[in-house]
Amino acid sequence: MQGKNLFGSLFFALSIVFLIYFTLFTSPYPPPDKAELLNCAAYSPWCTTSNHLRRGPKSPTRHLHSSSTPHHPLDPLTIKEINKVQAILKSHELFKNQVYAIHSLVLEEPEKSVVLAWNKGDELPSRKASVIARAKDVSHVLTVDIETSEVVEHDMGRVSGYPEMTIEDMTSSTWAPLANAEFNRSIVERGVDLADLACLPISTGWFGKKEDKRRLVKVQCYSMKDTANFYMRPIEGLTVVLDIDTKEVIEISDKGKNIPIPKAKNTDYTFSAQNGDQLKLVNPISLEQPQGPSFTVEDEHLVKWANWEFHLKPDPRAGVIISRAMVRDPDTGKLRNVMYKGFSSELFVPYMDPTDAWYFKTYMDAGEYGFGLQAMSLVPLNDCPRNAYYMDGVFTAADGTPFVRSNMICVFESYAGDIGWRHSESPITGMGIREVRPKVTLVVRMAASVANYDYIVDWVFQTDGLIRIKVGLSGILMVKGTSYVNMNQVNQEQSLYGTLLSENVIGVIHDHFVTFYLDMDVDGSENSFVKVNLQKEHPSPGESPRRSYLKAVRNVAKTEKDAQIKIKLYDPSEFHVINPSKKSRVGNPVGYKVVPAGTAASLLDHDDPPQRRGAFSNNQIWVTPYNQSEQWAGGLFVYQSHGDDTLAVWSDRDRPIENKDIVLWYTLGFHHIPCQEDFPIMPTVSSSFDIKPVNFFESNPILRTPPNMEKDLPNCRATASA
Amino acid sequence: MQGKNLFGSLFFALSIVFLIYFTLFTSPYPPPDKAELLNCAAYSPWCTTSNHLRRGPKSPTRHLHSSSTPHHPLDPLTIKEINKVQAILKSHELFKNQVYAIHSLVLEEPEKSVVLAWNKGDELPSRKASVIARAKDVSHVLTVDIETSEVVEHDMGRVSGYPEMTIEDMTSSTWAPLANAEFNRSIVERGVDLADLACLPISTGWFGKKEDKRRLVKVQCYSMKDTANFYMRPIEGLTVVLDIDTKEVIEISDKGKNIPIPKAKNTDYTFSAQNGDQLKLVNPISLEQPQGPSFTVEDEHLVKWANWEFHLKPDPRAGVIISRAMVRDPDTGKLRNVMYKGFSSELFVPYMDPTDAWYFKTYMDAGEYGFGLQAMSLVPLNDCPRNAYYMDGVFTAADGTPFVRSNMICVFESYAGDIGWRHSESPITGMGIREVRPKVTLVVRMAASVANYDYIVDWVFQTDGLIRIKVGLSGILMVKGTSYVNMNQVNQEQSLYGTLLSENVIGVIHDHFVTFYLDMDVDGSENSFVKVNLQKEHPSPGESPRRSYLKAVRNVAKTEKDAQIKIKLYDPSEFHVINPSKKSRVGNPVGYKVVPAGTAASLLDHDDPPQRRGAFSNNQIWVTPYNQSEQWAGGLFVYQSHGDDTLAVWSDRDRPIENKDIVLWYTLGFHHIPCQEDFPIMPTVSSSFDIKPVNFFESNPILRTPPNMEKDLPNCRATASA
Repeated sequence: MQGKNLFGSLFFALSIVFLIYFTLFTSPYPPPDKAELLNCAAYSPWCTTSNHLRRGPKSPTRHLHSSSTPHHPLDPLTIKEINKVQAILKSHELFKNQVYAIHSLVLEEPEKSVVLAWNKGDELPSRKASVIARAKDVSHVLTVDIETSEVVEHDMGRVSGYPEMTIEDMTSSTWAPLANAEFNRSIVERGVDLADLACLPISTGWFGKKEDKRRLVKVQCYSMKDTANFYMRPIEGLTVVLDIDTKEVIEISDKGKNIPIPKAKNTDYTFSAQNGDQLKLVNPISLEQPQGPSFTVEDEHLVKWANWEFHLKPDPRAGVIISRAMVRDPDTGKLRNVMYKGFSSELFVPYMDPTDAWYFKTYMDAGEYGFGLQAMSLVPLNDCPRNAYYMDGVFTAADGTPFVRSNMICVFESYAGDIGWRHSESPITGMGIREVRPKVTLVVRMAASVANYDYIVDWVFQTDGLIRIKVGLSGILMVKGTSYVNMNQVNQEQSLYGTLLSENVIGVIHDHFVTFYLDMDVDGSENSFVKVNLQKEHPSPGESPRRSYLKAVRNVAKTEKDAQIKIKLYDPSEFHVINPSKKSRVGNPVGYKVVPAGTAASLLDHDDPPQRRGAFSNNQIWVTPYNQSEQWAGGLFVYQSHGDDTLAVWSDRDRPIENKDIVLWYTLGFHHIPCQEDFPIMPTVSSSFDIKPVNFFESNPILRTPPNMEKDLPNCRATASA
Repeated sequence: MQGKNLFGSLFFALSIVFLIYFTLFTSPYPPPDKAELLNCAAYSPWCTTSNHLRRGPKSPTRHLHSSSTPHHPLDPLTIKEINKVQAILKSHELFKNQVYAIHSLVLEEPEKSVVLAWNKGDELPSRKASVIARAKDVSHVLTVDIETSEVVEHDMGRVSGYPEMTIEDMTSSTWAPLANAEFNRSIVERGVDLADLACLPISTGWFGKKEDKRRLVKVQCYSMKDTANFYMRPIEGLTVVLDIDTKEVIEISDKGKNIPIPKAKNTDYTFSAQNGDQLKLVNPISLEQPQGPSFTVEDEHLVKWANWEFHLKPDPRAGVIISRAMVRDPDTGKLRNVMYKGFSSELFVPYMDPTDAWYFKTYMDAGEYGFGLQAMSLVPLNDCPRNAYYMDGVFTAADGTPFVRSNMICVFESYAGDIGWRHSESPITGMGIREVRPKVTLVVRMAASVANYDYIVDWVFQTDGLIRIKVGLSGILMVKGTSYVNMNQVNQEQSLYGTLLSENVIGVIHDHFVTFYLDMDVDGSENSFVKVNLQKEHPSPGESPRRSYLKAVRNVAKTEKDAQIKIKLYDPSEFHVINPSKKSRVGNPVGYKVVPAGTAASLLDHDDPPQRRGAFSNNQIWVTPYNQSEQWAGGLFVYQSHGDDTLAVWSDRDRPIENKDIVLWYTLGFHHIPCQEDFPIMPTVSSSFDIKPVNFFESNPILRTPPNMEKDLPNCRATASA
């Protein structure tokens, strides 16, 4: 008893030391001066110094964010602007002499009409910041006018949920349990040295009043002894419920005492850990462009490539935002509007294990963790090929201090040996024609590491007018400890909720849903959504030797409910966004269609709390009328939300959407039943969908492109021999 | 009256001249001597001289097919062997002093057990030819022993249909109508000069007894005046029913007299026709490998790359055949069997127009035209990148004379800038780990031009053990002439059966189904097919705050009907081929899974004659017990078949398939509602599916691969500046 208390007190003391150490290490306070800021000393590890390997067109010298200024109405806030906002807020009555935290500080985009009216050379519309900050347990949504310093607070009404966690919330929460003696005891009882501890802040979701009235996080821990891949060494069943604001430990649940911590053997994926035992399968292969890439990035954010032009910026919540995407018409030479704004709006990742330490794992990575905040610096030559251009993110710490996330986005041209179009005349006609055009694309990429998982998001632009949005899943599984070492120990009836991947390691079944916001403006903002349904027809007897054929039947969606779409293999349709007032030469309405590929649907009950919060995954396609306040599919405040502000709720208002400014929503899904190949790190699995011109151009827009010629190809030799 | 007859007779005479000219031009008779044969003079245009640009590993000088010998039991017949078979057949009683035609002459592959037992260095099993030949209106299926000259005839029983057309059937049929005065009159009445005529031999399908008892083809024609793209200039509604054997014109149907022939304007896609008005969108970009490609091709057909090894050969019916695909286990260093044989077995392309000139267009490109016979020489630098290796096809003319189709297949390594696997540690842990491995693949490609359409078939091998089978559609639409020039002339109710693409041109709605034969041998031949179904479970009240989750339920297919699979988005499953007697270290059965991506299902009535013949498209997945005679999903004799010998018929026998040598069949589908962008030539549209290891490896097989390093990348400069 006595001993135990002494033991406990010792660890209590030790943990305090830990806590202080890590707080100092990770806390942004006191705000560093600008010099420190840009070399990130004070923001390590989650700020990164700017890229020195940056390459690509007009290859800039290291970009000095401290002196950059906005050039376009949609350009993100600069460091100067963020500093100004920080100063304004500090002295504002809401925050003055208060403990407060800034959860979001980004450009408040001007009205769409203002942006559409703006032309290069025009004066910029007034620059404003959109701020979400918390003080005295209240979330404030503010607009800060950077010129006038005016601050306007917006009434959000009685909506559930909290803003996304700040990085400070996450990092400090992971160490807070160390202040708890019982927690420390449990760790030691598992035979883990506190110095080997790695913990994760897991969003609690929402399952009823237990989670109400305060910001909660569940902390679970791992042993990082003998491996960089601590995720494969869970301290199973140990969950700490923590108050994010007070760091008070509310509950400790330990239901895994008898579950051993999996061994570290063969879990480390780092190259250095292979100690020379590497598997070199192929010779070097490289995408080479002797005349340099074909794209330019003007004023830091305006990308111009082939027949495309668009505005590109990093965002702490969405990751990548593509705006004002326009394609050049080969007949008129004019740029034509395709999409006003596109981004990944929310993710929903429910795990399929109802037990105590797992049921709540139903992540919404954008609104809970910040999809962009978790997008780390890309690795040149491996995340993106040699000629990639890199773009930095400028984000904000909880105290309002800006920091730089370098190389967060890359842009590069790709050629995989694919074919843009081709035709050979066959032996039948013997005309001997052989015409082929290679396919070259432009890729915009980011990779977000939301703790264990890595999401690779690509926006791929094609010269034929198609945009492919591709999501790749890699990184590391969230695994469950078990006492089993072989399936022969498991009886048929029993469910493991996943696959035994290695001794004592289960990969738990889960889904991934990524919902994209696509504000299509096809030759203008007033568009309609048309379902082109393929219906089986039966010719009347004697009319034809055929008994059946398919007919395309067009249905224009009048209201939102007409556009709540579940894809059906045996009741197929095309899904067009058309401009009803603009016709092609032969009278077809110009349009773009969304083309699904492989995907998965959420099968959870609609009244299951996680599905209520992730209700935007109830359909694959939705269409809503444009509304500046409806951009986040899970709601503005997703953390612990009750699902009262989702895309599904908005759509059920059933507003008119015909010949209006409409937004298309597409959800890309994955079911993931883990397999041993996913251990200890997953080969990338990808899926995608396309938005594709349909009677938008009068004819094939790349008809007149030239083939590859020997004379254009580079002359290369191995560097070694150089 | 008198005038009309004179007119007719004139054209009759003229047409005879044409007929003779084109027969001489395209007919293989008399057989040329070997020298001519290899330079193809006598086989132009459908024989091609061997490739001089051939590149790649161990880049051979021009391959002398005339002297080549087989090295592997599965190697295709050599020119010497074909000549031997030709001689044997000539003197055989069935054909001696007969008019006969050889429709198929290929290697008769040895018994699977013999091939599996064979090792390099062993003597080759006896070489045999499998021959399909017709004489006196009878189709004979023969096995010819090349050493012993023994000929065995096989009794095919009472099965409907005919062998695929010979190229001589196709070419001669297109000109036969010119011998008919009524036909010539119709052409002239449409204002088309006979010299501008281009005609196509269109398989009639089968719709009842009308098509019985003789080989029929329907000929439709186009005007090639002022464009290489005659397909866009149909002489609509004019259909000639022809007896392929006698060339007798059985019926002429002309229902399009009032339909103008579309203008040639903007239809020509050839580069020369752009007369300088070209659209250069991007700088040169090239896949460069300063140390050369990482693969070798041994003995002409054995491909070795990274951790893969497989036998590759061209086939006149299937196109590409991949055999004995094996992957090296990173733990043991041993090669392991994955797939014994894989190829595209049949295609089904029904058009959705029930009218007189269109209802019968329900192509089965492999069994009617020869998917490989229609695969023309690939265009270096455009069909395949610079480092591609090219493989020739050696095929047989109707008289049994061999000819060379050069560069029919290419093999190359691809790197698109994609990521094999990655993980960055996030701000949450701040461990600063950033590990990324690039993704390099090996592509095997062919491109078949079945008249207007081009099918690009890729077999893509990944180092992580995945094989992606990808089908790209390009080429030219089969269009319908119309009097409409604008949609404002069409009333709502009326169906065009497609889309108005240009003045007087309709792109008719159609489907594409490509059915692949995949004889999986996962670590041996005895395998089982397992459906891993994701089922929704409801925890009992109070058991969990969750109301629902998904559970994986495994069902082993006992018989064929258990494995007739329609994919369902809302009742999802994984589809595994496992080896029940081989378990991983932790006790999971080793397996490969087939992973569908975007696809389309056939919606036609099952009793619609085309669907009966294409019944293999009734499901996306089928599994049959291995049977050497069941390789062609539409039956051995597809031409005018009644659908009595399809995969659907075999599968309905419901034979046992558990723990047996099984064959997996997958059908990839496309619905194609044409749009203006498809005019006058289509940008490539692709879809694919994967076969992917599932608990086949103990862990991620590419864990130990190294990242890209700057020092490995080449040093390139523009050739111009060289």
